[in-house]
Amino acid sequence: MQLPRQHRVVVVGGGFGGLVATRTLKRAPVRVTLVARSANHLFQPLLYQYATGILDEGEIAPPLRQVLARQRNVRVLLAEVDSFDLEGRVVTGRTPDGRGLTLAYDSLIVAAGAHSSYFGHNELALHSTPMKTIDDALALRRRIFGAFETAELATDPDTRRSWLTFAVVGAGPTGVELAGQLRELATRTLRDEFRSIDPSHSRVVLFDGGPEPLPRFGDQLASRAEMVLRGLGVELRMGRVVTAIDGDGLMARGSNGAEERLETHTVIWAAGVQASPLARMLADASGAGCDRHGRVEVLPDCTLPGHPEVFCAGDMVSLRGLTGMAEAAMQMGRYAARTIKRRAKGQGADRPFRYIDLGSMAYLSRGQAVVSFHGLRFHGFIGWLMWLVVHITFLTGFKNRVSALFTWVTAFGGRARNQRALALRDIEQRPPAAGRKSA
Amino acid sequence: MQLPRQHRVVVVGGGFGGLVATRTLKRAPVRVTLVARSANHLFQPLLYQYATGILDEGEIAPPLRQVLARQRNVRVLLAEVDSFDLEGRVVTGRTPDGRGLTLAYDSLIVAAGAHSSYFGHNELALHSTPMKTIDDALALRRRIFGAFETAELATDPDTRRSWLTFAVVGAGPTGVELAGQLRELATRTLRDEFRSIDPSHSRVVLFDGGPEPLPRFGDQLASRAEMVLRGLGVELRMGRVVTAIDGDGLMARGSNGAEERLETHTVIWAAGVQASPLARMLADASGAGCDRHGRVEVLPDCTLPGHPEVFCAGDMVSLRGLTGMAEAAMQMGRYAARTIKRRAKGQGADRPFRYIDLGSMAYLSRGQAVVSFHGLRFHGFIGWLMWLVVHITFLTGFKNRVSALFTWVTAFGGRARNQRALALRDIEQRPPAAGRKSA
Repeated sequence: MQLPRQHRVVVVGGGFGGLVATRTLKRAPVRVTLVARSANHLFQPLLYQYATGILDEGEIAPPLRQVLARQRNVRVLLAEVDSFDLEGRVVTGRTPDGRGLTLAYDSLIVAAGAHSSYFGHNELALHSTPMKTIDDALALRRRIFGAFETAELATDPDTRRSWLTFAVVGAGPTGVELAGQLRELATRTLRDEFRSIDPSHSRVVLFDGGPEPLPRFGDQLASRAEMVLRGLGVELRMGRVVTAIDGDGLMARGSNGAEERLETHTVIWAAGVQASPLARMLADASGAGCDRHGRVEVLPDCTLPGHPEVFCAGDMVSLRGLTGMAEAAMQMGRYAARTIKRRAKGQGADRPFRYIDLGSMAYLSRGQAVVSFHGLRFHGFIGWLMWLVVHITFLTGFKNRVSALFTWVTAFGGRARNQRALALRDIEQRPPAAGRKSA
Repeated sequence: MQLPRQHRVVVVGGGFGGLVATRTLKRAPVRVTLVARSANHLFQPLLYQYATGILDEGEIAPPLRQVLARQRNVRVLLAEVDSFDLEGRVVTGRTPDGRGLTLAYDSLIVAAGAHSSYFGHNELALHSTPMKTIDDALALRRRIFGAFETAELATDPDTRRSWLTFAVVGAGPTGVELAGQLRELATRTLRDEFRSIDPSHSRVVLFDGGPEPLPRFGDQLASRAEMVLRGLGVELRMGRVVTAIDGDGLMARGSNGAEERLETHTVIWAAGVQASPLARMLADASGAGCDRHGRVEVLPDCTLPGHPEVFCAGDMVSLRGLTGMAEAAMQMGRYAARTIKRRAKGQGADRPFRYIDLGSMAYLSRGQAVVSFHGLRFHGFIGWLMWLVVHITFLTGFKNRVSALFTWVTAFGGRARNQRALALRDIEQRPPAAGRKSA
């Protein structure tokens, strides 16, 4: 007896969109191949906690294989996708040892995400640290703790001061959360650890071209966040565009055109993202448009024009401003998977994709978060409790939840941060002085 | 009123010797400067658990500053020591940002440890991974998990087989523990995670020039360990010296001179160590001897000839075969600190250093460890419980102990390993084929 040939689904990307799509296909009569460039899912909204030494790698980056071990209709492949043949319904890529890989599909979901972008000014990348991957966050963590170490050894007050100055570019959730954590780190965790410097004298300066932090949260919560950040000691430089970064500082231009310089060795780039190049590839192949961030303009059902079998999801998609939100990526991934499931079962017509706004939240400091939810706004301790419940719920896997809860209890209760191994060679490999730009 | 000038102690190295020396000086009327190349202490005996995805960075590498935060007579400096002026009693080095550093001392304790050694055959390093620092272990972890990922994608059986073969060189505690963990990983953790390969078919081959594993534990426990390892599926190749390693395999020579080749992409080097170059520097400056591993031959009181104020401790010291043991390094460090304390208080003559053998232990697998203690020998579950109690006791800091205990309960009870983030680019940067050696 011959089994009916199973519908083949290829999912590209192991982020929120790809992982949720894959899990949604759990009981569907399909065979799923998840192709990802990382063997782990990354819980991006908590990356800043890894970068500042609170959570460990396992807590925010569980292995995709472990998460999907019991879903027997999925295989996970660690490979780079480099092209699509939409007519032939084939994805091609390459394996870690450099061999070619060809995957035929009946349905395709591409959720390849975005990476840090410097708005075409790639020279800004040379002396700043992005915050997108786990390697970025590890590098950043070493720079942050390394800056305090170097300051402790400095003999000249100006040198010391510049090592104790941290610039964060971009006042979205990532930038705001990082800035808050840097001050908590300086005033709580490191309080008794140094002898020559006082870490609480360190400066954290937050730059953004817009008028206020967290614009997506609305004026009321944005002002609240501004107040909390100022209370923590974060210096806000709103309406300032960073125009140059060298190894010793940065230049920022105000709306009146005046330039100011800040001496610092640590610049964190949390300002912009650019969609994966796969987005443009799919746009070109299907005749879809692309926005200025390289995101593909999909149809209202998240598919490509002329290709109802090809879905796109998450940060590489241009659809009603739904970007930079884990929740939107998850909803798109779930929608795509459900549509495929319904088609595979021969069930009725597809409903269009409808985004359900579950709100936004940002962690400001111990016991302080801002939450916007269905037109309601919460802040302070209530907001923080909501933040805690939501993040514990969404962390993937039992061990991660319990372990993160335990970590947070000790981190919020006490003040130790353990995830901060650092060797001299991690920080002494500074970018070459020759790469310096005169502003 | 002028305060009496305090006795200045400089401690070089933040490993077991240096950290215990520093803590022992807690209530002494001295001012301590601890200079280390890593900002964290490394609990080296558990490094293999980090390399195989069980423990996280914070559990095995707590920050020195955090551990010593409340000891007010200590300052910690992250710097590289590059020379000693024993007559002038000055240590010189350099800071992370490349400036010079000069530290005057009244007493000096040097405990700079050892690094992996290839017995003069540095070409062996090109295609193998050492196991000494936290960066080594991270690189190794990525290679191990990356090998399974690459095998999953292989289409040719020989290629798959060579990616699923792991060679461990050196059957001391580190090599034996790693070999056991690799089999546990393959048979338990990864059991349901792959679709094309069966991880339990992976081979772990343990090489050593000597006749049996764990020679320091005596014949009885060595045979026991051999039995447990074979039961786990580790292939033992005792009496074999590894003579060449290339990107595709290694060559080993038996005692009869016959060469055998093993096809593998993952070779772990746990065979030999060489003392820090600071050991030879001190030997040359004081006229002390050096053994073939570059360890300085100290006097019976751990000082240098003619320099009763300069102590050496740990793996850079040649003293009655006391090397490669955390316990010996701790006892030397404690002895040096107590001697300095007694001198600072003007108390009687120094006692000579006496090593108290507290025994050795090695973890073989879940519920299996071998312990040699005061002539008594334990193995199996009792041995494993002793292992657990001792390691929980010696981990540094409350959070680490509770967190490691929790991790072990979930790791030994369940089978998940979370610490294994891995990106494609971590494993595709293979050593160049041009570097290959024909054996």
